[in-house]
Amino acid sequence: MLGKDYRGQDCSIARALEVIGERWTPLIVRDAFYGVRRFGEFQTHLDIPKAVLSDRLNGLVQDGILARTADPEHAGRHLYELTPAGRELWPVLYGLLVWGGRHRAENSRIFRHSACATVLDDRGWCPVCGVIPGPEDVVSEPRPGHERLRTDPVSLALAAPRRLLEPLMV
Amino acid sequence: MLGKDYRGQDCSIARALEVIGERWTPLIVRDAFYGVRRFGEFQTHLDIPKAVLSDRLNGLVQDGILARTADPEHAGRHLYELTPAGRELWPVLYGLLVWGGRHRAENSRIFRHSACATVLDDRGWCPVCGVIPGPEDVVSEPRPGHERLRTDPVSLALAAPRRLLEPLMV
Repeated sequence: MLGKDYRGQDCSIARALEVIGERWTPLIVRDAFYGVRRFGEFQTHLDIPKAVLSDRLNGLVQDGILARTADPEHAGRHLYELTPAGRELWPVLYGLLVWGGRHRAENSRIFRHSACATVLDDRGWCPVCGVIPGPEDVVSEPRPGHERLRTDPVSLALAAPRRLLEPLMV
Repeated sequence: MLGKDYRGQDCSIARALEVIGERWTPLIVRDAFYGVRRFGEFQTHLDIPKAVLSDRLNGLVQDGILARTADPEHAGRHLYELTPAGRELWPVLYGLLVWGGRHRAENSRIFRHSACATVLDDRGWCPVCGVIPGPEDVVSEPRPGHERLRTDPVSLALAAPRRLLEPLMV
């Protein structure tokens, strides 16, 4: 099995990949930006084996990307939330999203600056306000005309425009 | 073995990860930005098994990220060069580099706008010219005071300031 470290590489790209380079990890972090907070919600949206999800969530907690707290509504379960360091991964995810949208298939969602509702450009820049808003000031909604392919509860909850990082109620 | 696709995910982040999500692939693309073009140069800089490097290079060629051409100086060998689509991955790599540099260990290199020699900020923005230069207008050099940990020929060639994408002569 391949490890997840890049010990011989003196490069902060390698250091970042040690944190979010594993298969599925970037999509788990994406879902956390969309407000997903519970194990079962990640699972229904990602369709991955519980063991993989559990391994990745534990790694993200250990690496300081997600904070794990007790779920007040479900004894014995947890909530996962992006830490400040985790929130700073937004430019990486947005960069992947833009690249995939330009070169593979348009993204299923669009992203607006919450202050003025302007759609952000490929650099995440709001041309009206002249800023690159942080994820807490970005509203995401399904792209008009994009056929919805998934009908799991998280995908349905994401059908309405939502501010990033706002906890999802499924 | 885990696959590299994310078929059930209707999201352009997933599409991008199908291209550069595998272990080592982002570091191979990084090296291509640094001007690495030959199999042996990638190998000496990355210290990875030939079979892994060969698999990743083939995948990147197939996915339209790298173009493979005959090496005029070595019969039977190849040169690899980023395509226009591959060059558009720069914001993703720069985002990883910035995140790793802020939260793990400072990057071993710094990045300047070639037009004015100003160091780029965390968004890749040149505050003097008011632009986010493309990688072809970025000069990279070792960070002053950063101890060099690697002594392979590629690392030594990268000791001088170099414009990104300019072919490395090792």
